[in-house]
Amino acid sequence: MTVTDPRAPGAYLDHAATTPMSSAALEAYVAEASRTGNASSLHSAGRSARRTVEESRETVAAALDARPSEVIFTGGGTESDNLAVKGIFWGRRTQDSRRRRVLISAVEHHAVLDPAFWLAGHAGAEITLLDVDDEGRIDLDALKAELANAPEEIALVSVMWANNEVGTVQPIREVVRLAHQQGIPVHTDAIQAVGQVEVGFAASGVDALTVTGHKLGGPVGVGALLARRDLPLEAVSHGGGQERGVRSGTLDGAAIAAFAVALQDAVTHRAERAERLAALRDALVDGVRAVVPDAVLRGPDPAATTSSGGPARLPANAHFTFPGAEGDSLLYLLDSAGVQASTGSACQAGVPQPSHVLLAMGVDEADARGALRFSLGATSTRDDVDRLLEALPQVADRARAAGLVSTRPLTGGAA
Amino acid sequence: MTVTDPRAPGAYLDHAATTPMSSAALEAYVAEASRTGNASSLHSAGRSARRTVEESRETVAAALDARPSEVIFTGGGTESDNLAVKGIFWGRRTQDSRRRRVLISAVEHHAVLDPAFWLAGHAGAEITLLDVDDEGRIDLDALKAELANAPEEIALVSVMWANNEVGTVQPIREVVRLAHQQGIPVHTDAIQAVGQVEVGFAASGVDALTVTGHKLGGPVGVGALLARRDLPLEAVSHGGGQERGVRSGTLDGAAIAAFAVALQDAVTHRAERAERLAALRDALVDGVRAVVPDAVLRGPDPAATTSSGGPARLPANAHFTFPGAEGDSLLYLLDSAGVQASTGSACQAGVPQPSHVLLAMGVDEADARGALRFSLGATSTRDDVDRLLEALPQVADRARAAGLVSTRPLTGGAA
Repeated sequence: MTVTDPRAPGAYLDHAATTPMSSAALEAYVAEASRTGNASSLHSAGRSARRTVEESRETVAAALDARPSEVIFTGGGTESDNLAVKGIFWGRRTQDSRRRRVLISAVEHHAVLDPAFWLAGHAGAEITLLDVDDEGRIDLDALKAELANAPEEIALVSVMWANNEVGTVQPIREVVRLAHQQGIPVHTDAIQAVGQVEVGFAASGVDALTVTGHKLGGPVGVGALLARRDLPLEAVSHGGGQERGVRSGTLDGAAIAAFAVALQDAVTHRAERAERLAALRDALVDGVRAVVPDAVLRGPDPAATTSSGGPARLPANAHFTFPGAEGDSLLYLLDSAGVQASTGSACQAGVPQPSHVLLAMGVDEADARGALRFSLGATSTRDDVDRLLEALPQVADRARAAGLVSTRPLTGGAA
Repeated sequence: MTVTDPRAPGAYLDHAATTPMSSAALEAYVAEASRTGNASSLHSAGRSARRTVEESRETVAAALDARPSEVIFTGGGTESDNLAVKGIFWGRRTQDSRRRRVLISAVEHHAVLDPAFWLAGHAGAEITLLDVDDEGRIDLDALKAELANAPEEIALVSVMWANNEVGTVQPIREVVRLAHQQGIPVHTDAIQAVGQVEVGFAASGVDALTVTGHKLGGPVGVGALLARRDLPLEAVSHGGGQERGVRSGTLDGAAIAAFAVALQDAVTHRAERAERLAALRDALVDGVRAVVPDAVLRGPDPAATTSSGGPARLPANAHFTFPGAEGDSLLYLLDSAGVQASTGSACQAGVPQPSHVLLAMGVDEADARGALRFSLGATSTRDDVDRLLEALPQVADRARAAGLVSTRPLTGGAA
């Protein structure tokens, strides 16, 4: 990707929100979108479109250590998460009506949290939010205790592979081991993890895994849920019966082909890219600490490793809180200086509200409101980091001078 | 579109399944996909991406006689239909728990039928299939009678604007008038109608309307549900809270921009394109009748008009049954001769099964199995029709010689 992006002339440090589509992926999209054919049609144009989809399915499966028949193409990460949480809940509950409990970590993305709470309101589900430690890592003892408490009533466990805000890599294999001891399936949202750390569907033992295109150089609007064939999974979208009857809707061959190209590239070059980005991230973290000494890094130490030897934190993620400053103020002031970052919260409307992830980690509300996430991607350079470090001292001073906004009561909570 | 399509070197007569993406739409996709920015992000790249989405929303609204705030972007027609049927059902039922009945025409697409039957199995819905006449037109007297029968228990009515198999245009304004007399909202699946007949959201009075990109020169994987602001509509996909909280998921700016371009083109050039395609379709219908005299045209007479003066049949649609022949045999034999058509059924796997649309029209099962749909689009030419007419006599003879397959009991039914 050497294309000049008119929207990011300065430093784009928000790759976790969305990262540029690679030229190879865009070429794959254009090639496929220039041909006619609905992959469900039986004539030759349809069969040719189907061939593209099935070759892409093989590519996706190979990149993620799965079988092609385990790949269900969807319209993206949110849809995959909804399908996993609701589809497994309904599938398992149909088998045994006692299974109404859903265990999810307290730091899940809203695309997992909100479907779970919707099931609580509409389908009699009972949600347990699993505690995390001060670095955002799931408490395995608490999980074990929850699993031992009437396991016959548990429909599923959903724990993300790595957190989108603070980059914490979760001990997924341990989660799987504990859940499987009780015969309970595990879903993981691996949207941020794929391309940054090693993600293997079969090796991890998870029963379902979410991945999406636009976080790794593919298009928006396409993703997949990997799901074991023996996993009870009910459809969430109904109609033409595509994708084993689990996900209806005309297959988006162009987006699927582009997604497969981007995913393969992300996985093939993962190790060297992760090494480069981790070094850049370390420079960013060291630099921020040097220019704003009281900034507090949230999430795991960048140098820490997991029990399996991988990084404890996503290599492209850095996250700080700035005492006495409002995240939105920091964001806008940085933006004016040509540096694009994120408060890291799911806040859509610009209303300051503390991140449920930080609150779950025990950060107090005032500190949580001064959060800023910096996330790197394939196009990131040292210049981006330097530009941030140059702008940050004055930005932090000005944001602190503006102080904390307190226009409304803070609600906290996960949903 | 003068691009040579490697997949349709012969005659592509299946535009109702999917039609080529226009070069203008593809250019719009590429332009947007080459820029970075998540439309939910607050920095300048995000705000720029948001601007593209909002400008596209205005274009879509203007093209369909709606307000921008009534446009909810989705991942396509199936998702829009699912959102409408389930979202209105839940929304209305939350207001009044008696509202459990769903009235839908017997000739709906599976993307409406299947969500309705899923609600019956999972949420206590009671489905009424509304009868149609022998041309596929809804029986307004039967609708009126159903509406008078405990209207306080009816959650919604869903009747498609025009049928995807036989092209029948439904009397939507009459449906709306009758339903609104009882205070009941109406959804319409206008996927096949938009670009072929005049479709006005406000003028029609419907409360919700489905439209999709890839049937009118836009990309697959994007569409919209138009919904009045006062319509009770619950989210079906939960997460980040995009699109008024009704449809979560990262906004696919590139696909949305391309969809808007294609939709605007389809509506702007609708009248002259419809006239050209109707003439071509008439030549096709006359030609088929001339070369295979016992072929039976299904659906309305191409020359017929509705009470409002519009065509009673979609201008780009022709549909025949060929007595004694199997639709799949016809399809494959035509394909070998370079002509791509569809059996018109939702059959995915090539297993012969009669269309629920034809059965609802009173066609007997044996006849229904000999169905073939020919659908035209912006790229269709007289050569396409000639190629069909040249191949058809021999194809029909050979298909009849092969006879009807009777490998399994016919189930019929709508779902």
